[in-house]
Amino acid sequence: MTKKKTNQGVEILAIGTELLLGNILNSNAKWLAEQLALIGLSHYRQTVVGDNIERLKEIVLEASQRSHILITTGGLGPTMDDLTTETIAQAFKADLVEHKAILQDIKNKLNNLDIFPESNLKQSLLPEGATILPNPLGTAPGMIWSPEDNFTIITFPGVPSEMKIMWKKTAKPWILENHASGKIIKSKTIKIAGIPESALTERISDLITKTNPTIAPYASLGEVKLRITAQAKTAQEANKLIQPIESELEKRIGLSIFGRDEESLASIVIDLLRKRRETIALAESCTGGQIASSLTSIPGSSDVFLGGVVAYSNSIKQNILKVPLNLLEEHGAVSSAVAKSMANKTRQLFNSDWSIAVSGIAGPSGGSQGKPVGLVEIFISGNTAQESIQENFGPHRGRDYIQKLSVVRALDRLRLFLLMQS
Amino acid sequence: MTKKKTNQGVEILAIGTELLLGNILNSNAKWLAEQLALIGLSHYRQTVVGDNIERLKEIVLEASQRSHILITTGGLGPTMDDLTTETIAQAFKADLVEHKAILQDIKNKLNNLDIFPESNLKQSLLPEGATILPNPLGTAPGMIWSPEDNFTIITFPGVPSEMKIMWKKTAKPWILENHASGKIIKSKTIKIAGIPESALTERISDLITKTNPTIAPYASLGEVKLRITAQAKTAQEANKLIQPIESELEKRIGLSIFGRDEESLASIVIDLLRKRRETIALAESCTGGQIASSLTSIPGSSDVFLGGVVAYSNSIKQNILKVPLNLLEEHGAVSSAVAKSMANKTRQLFNSDWSIAVSGIAGPSGGSQGKPVGLVEIFISGNTAQESIQENFGPHRGRDYIQKLSVVRALDRLRLFLLMQS
Repeated sequence: MTKKKTNQGVEILAIGTELLLGNILNSNAKWLAEQLALIGLSHYRQTVVGDNIERLKEIVLEASQRSHILITTGGLGPTMDDLTTETIAQAFKADLVEHKAILQDIKNKLNNLDIFPESNLKQSLLPEGATILPNPLGTAPGMIWSPEDNFTIITFPGVPSEMKIMWKKTAKPWILENHASGKIIKSKTIKIAGIPESALTERISDLITKTNPTIAPYASLGEVKLRITAQAKTAQEANKLIQPIESELEKRIGLSIFGRDEESLASIVIDLLRKRRETIALAESCTGGQIASSLTSIPGSSDVFLGGVVAYSNSIKQNILKVPLNLLEEHGAVSSAVAKSMANKTRQLFNSDWSIAVSGIAGPSGGSQGKPVGLVEIFISGNTAQESIQENFGPHRGRDYIQKLSVVRALDRLRLFLLMQS
Repeated sequence: MTKKKTNQGVEILAIGTELLLGNILNSNAKWLAEQLALIGLSHYRQTVVGDNIERLKEIVLEASQRSHILITTGGLGPTMDDLTTETIAQAFKADLVEHKAILQDIKNKLNNLDIFPESNLKQSLLPEGATILPNPLGTAPGMIWSPEDNFTIITFPGVPSEMKIMWKKTAKPWILENHASGKIIKSKTIKIAGIPESALTERISDLITKTNPTIAPYASLGEVKLRITAQAKTAQEANKLIQPIESELEKRIGLSIFGRDEESLASIVIDLLRKRRETIALAESCTGGQIASSLTSIPGSSDVFLGGVVAYSNSIKQNILKVPLNLLEEHGAVSSAVAKSMANKTRQLFNSDWSIAVSGIAGPSGGSQGKPVGLVEIFISGNTAQESIQENFGPHRGRDYIQKLSVVRALDRLRLFLLMQS
């Protein structure tokens, strides 16, 4: 009774009311999606459903109409609202069979308990014909079960560590043996700052229509990512497809590419400074410590980052950074002159090779005709070189946006500035 | 042509091949799920689909059979693989109509560009009859569209900051006005720090079984929220249901309740200081500016926050904060003695009423037998009172966790400390 399927791929179904209430992120689906991509299995849909028998049954039956493999996470525990196994069995009108091996395994794992908990008993039941998917860490085994020709259900518990080891030890080898596509999918992400998404995509519009590899843009605050994805028989072949595209992007976008894959502006700036064996210190006004936070979120940042002053009030700019009073009075705190003084004094105070100062009006109040909310002065200071940058991010996108974009811009300008220094 | 629906609720559909490839977490679905829970709308299913016209169409039509509202995220950008709007229009055989207002808004937002990018043009097209869901931050507006009786689609871009502000400003008010069940649902969130979720829920287990109002706990990093939700005919009646529960919670949880609804630890600490007309300064080592960032993210924080020093290296602790060398040598940077000295010197340096110093080992490296990764020293210093706090968050949950939990703990202990000062 082989059916005509619409999608012919894999689906992931995460089961748990806590996901529908927004209590937790569906990190299991992300992880499994990545694993499926790595072994080249097509995966077209992810679903989340609560701990509800009727709705779960409905989704499992839908999936059997369109896909070859349904991977589920969650609902295998011992409590009343863990109902994945029995509901799937019901959906295909199968009986549950007790597995002595599971019972024994649970007994071993609960060896501190004198009495076998009634509630764990149901974890030893699987639909007739299902294979145990062993759980080396917890009491909840999964299963691999084909209730129909051409349709297999693989169940995992929701606990990420258990799900991951079960995938690696049993599920992935089973899939590779039974559903090998012969192809793998590999991605590389190119990260860009300083160019709006629309302008960028116009510059590479001919490349975006390609099919292997594909190129897809994703915009986030102040950054654009281009994801290059190739299908091939081996990782080496996939890399050979990705490489010329990456070179072409480098040619067209140049220095606006700041990093790849897991790299961030902060990690790149730290790497650049580490290679130069140079240090940096910060004077932050409107960004209020966010540049420091961003740098210190990177392990090993202490190699190059000495510290900073969050000079939020004018008196601190004057008393700690020693910005001359006449500069503050003549130009105002948000001025190129004051940013320059803040940067230079910070470099002296911390005895660092470089410093950045940021002073701006993040709003919502504090703006004026000449100095509107969104105006930000950035100054980069070094022994032999310096740069003054003025940005106007506008008032409309709010305080959080102005602060975050100031961080991106300061780190990106420092990056470009360091690249120019030989 | 009202249909018999199976689920009668809301569904969330996230659109983007990057989600199916496991490149990013579906944090938008989590956030929206939480928002739906907060306004008491039933939400039964979440789906993820790639940037694929046929599969997207299929899912949208499925959703129209079972739900009243479909909320989508993603696919509203200017690039070729952004195909949400046109695919939804196709699914319901509707024409696209150009909206001059959107065109003008995009022009304003791209005011640095000389030529209007061709690719942005399509963002001004919506299906006939759709209402613009304005995007105050980016060029991608969403829409609110009812292609059939009893079925409404609300589209959001995938950029979280844009999606969130569009929800708050337009989508949520629309939903509250148009999908009220004759009853209103009112929620109040009680925020708690310093008690683990399991201990807290045991203390209030009898209240959690109530039905109107309901009480639901949500745990996040270092905090637990208790959401009290009441259904009633009027807001006044709902408040009457919520009020006695809130009083009961206050009685049982006491001072560990730090705030309500939109309040945060940072906003509460700033309010407390403002009422006392007192100021604060910071000396941050392992938190690297995150406490300062947290305080300065609050508008008006400059009333009480003077600034801080991110003293990441020992030499800065010595040279700028003037921590005596013998203290550093004898006790080490992560010690109560050094934290105390950092706090006292910072209070002098900034001439503030209060100061907090934090010094700890965020890892992954830098730990030792006596001072393991996860050890954090916090010191609160004032003119007439001071407090030393030692925390050990353990090494297993990583750098980010240790830094963030240090911020929560420092602000919460300051809050409790200020409440004790009369």
